[in-house]
Amino acid sequence: MSPEEFFPFWSELSPRWKERLYRAAVFRRIDKGTIVHNGSADCLGLLLVNSGQLRAYIISPEGREITIYRLFARDICLFSASCMMQNIQFDITIEAEKDATVWIIPPKIYKKLMDECAAAANYTNGIMASRFSEVMWLMEQVLWNRFDRRLAAFLLEESVLEGSSLLTITHEKIANHMGSAREVVTRMLRYFQKEGLVELSRGTIRIVDSAGLEKL
Amino acid sequence: MSPEEFFPFWSELSPRWKERLYRAAVFRRIDKGTIVHNGSADCLGLLLVNSGQLRAYIISPEGREITIYRLFARDICLFSASCMMQNIQFDITIEAEKDATVWIIPPKIYKKLMDECAAAANYTNGIMASRFSEVMWLMEQVLWNRFDRRLAAFLLEESVLEGSSLLTITHEKIANHMGSAREVVTRMLRYFQKEGLVELSRGTIRIVDSAGLEKL
Repeated sequence: MSPEEFFPFWSELSPRWKERLYRAAVFRRIDKGTIVHNGSADCLGLLLVNSGQLRAYIISPEGREITIYRLFARDICLFSASCMMQNIQFDITIEAEKDATVWIIPPKIYKKLMDECAAAANYTNGIMASRFSEVMWLMEQVLWNRFDRRLAAFLLEESVLEGSSLLTITHEKIANHMGSAREVVTRMLRYFQKEGLVELSRGTIRIVDSAGLEKL
Repeated sequence: MSPEEFFPFWSELSPRWKERLYRAAVFRRIDKGTIVHNGSADCLGLLLVNSGQLRAYIISPEGREITIYRLFARDICLFSASCMMQNIQFDITIEAEKDATVWIIPPKIYKKLMDECAAAANYTNGIMASRFSEVMWLMEQVLWNRFDRRLAAFLLEESVLEGSSLLTITHEKIANHMGSAREVVTRMLRYFQKEGLVELSRGTIRIVDSAGLEKL
């Protein structure tokens, strides 16, 4: 992928900015296991992930790690350029979880681009909102006693009771069973579907990976 | 406060935009206990907090609440206008925790401002980064088994051992005692200071509210 493919606002840029970004972008291979960003002191730049896989995680005072999100080809890693953003006051570590190739845009250049180009600033805003949403999801999982586990257990139980992997039950009913709200159940079921654990259709839920649900 | 005082980029706006914002802004009283935003379906607008106090929280599937941050006079509430931002995929509820007065900027107008004005987009980015940082802090507390509690317990113990509320100990040493890192200890001590629990000065920590620490 070329750098321009990462920026949907590319066509709005002036020829001068296009050239500037192309000149500034550095292509780099990152070996699996390499730490590319380590806390707020580091400020390597914006990483455009061309291939491979990066993992962002936080480290506890005792040295435990927890993954907060992953980045794949086509993703943009923002927090490796956290110095260019105001008010970022947390430390995350980013490592290459698989061999990766990236384009690196120096933070100063990208900051200047955001200052001059509203489309770039708003696009960056959208990336931050995505990461924010991932972190909120994770926090909800942690805080609410792993609703995913409870729902997985419920579906497996129902499946045993009905003697079938095809459950005829509404989200509303599941919510009532679990003392929850329909939207919460729907959101989690959609997540299960994305993970290939179930298939949803009107009024039914088919368990396609009961081993996966059990693992939860 | 007038709307312009909330926007440090005000002087960069065109006269047309200044007028537009003034015309669009609606002043409103919000009684204590009022829910001003309830999940992603709501999109009241940007709230400029003139007085009072708002609370943002999430609700568990079982109906438990947890506060994720608070907003005071001079703060801007962004997520009450979450429809204007891409990729926000979480539901928060915002209520007036005390009687409040706010300016409301309709989401469409503010979205248009961000699209046209990079300074506004970047400022909004900074607000999101602040909230993001608050949520990360909260998540770390939850995940890491409440480091605040452990540190409070440590300080109280030391105080008993030394027979004094003035502890002569470096952050580095505390970190070693607790199997943690100096930065983590420093950050938490600064938080304690902000909360009026301790007073920090070079090489010493004075416990000013031992009851508060015990409560932790």
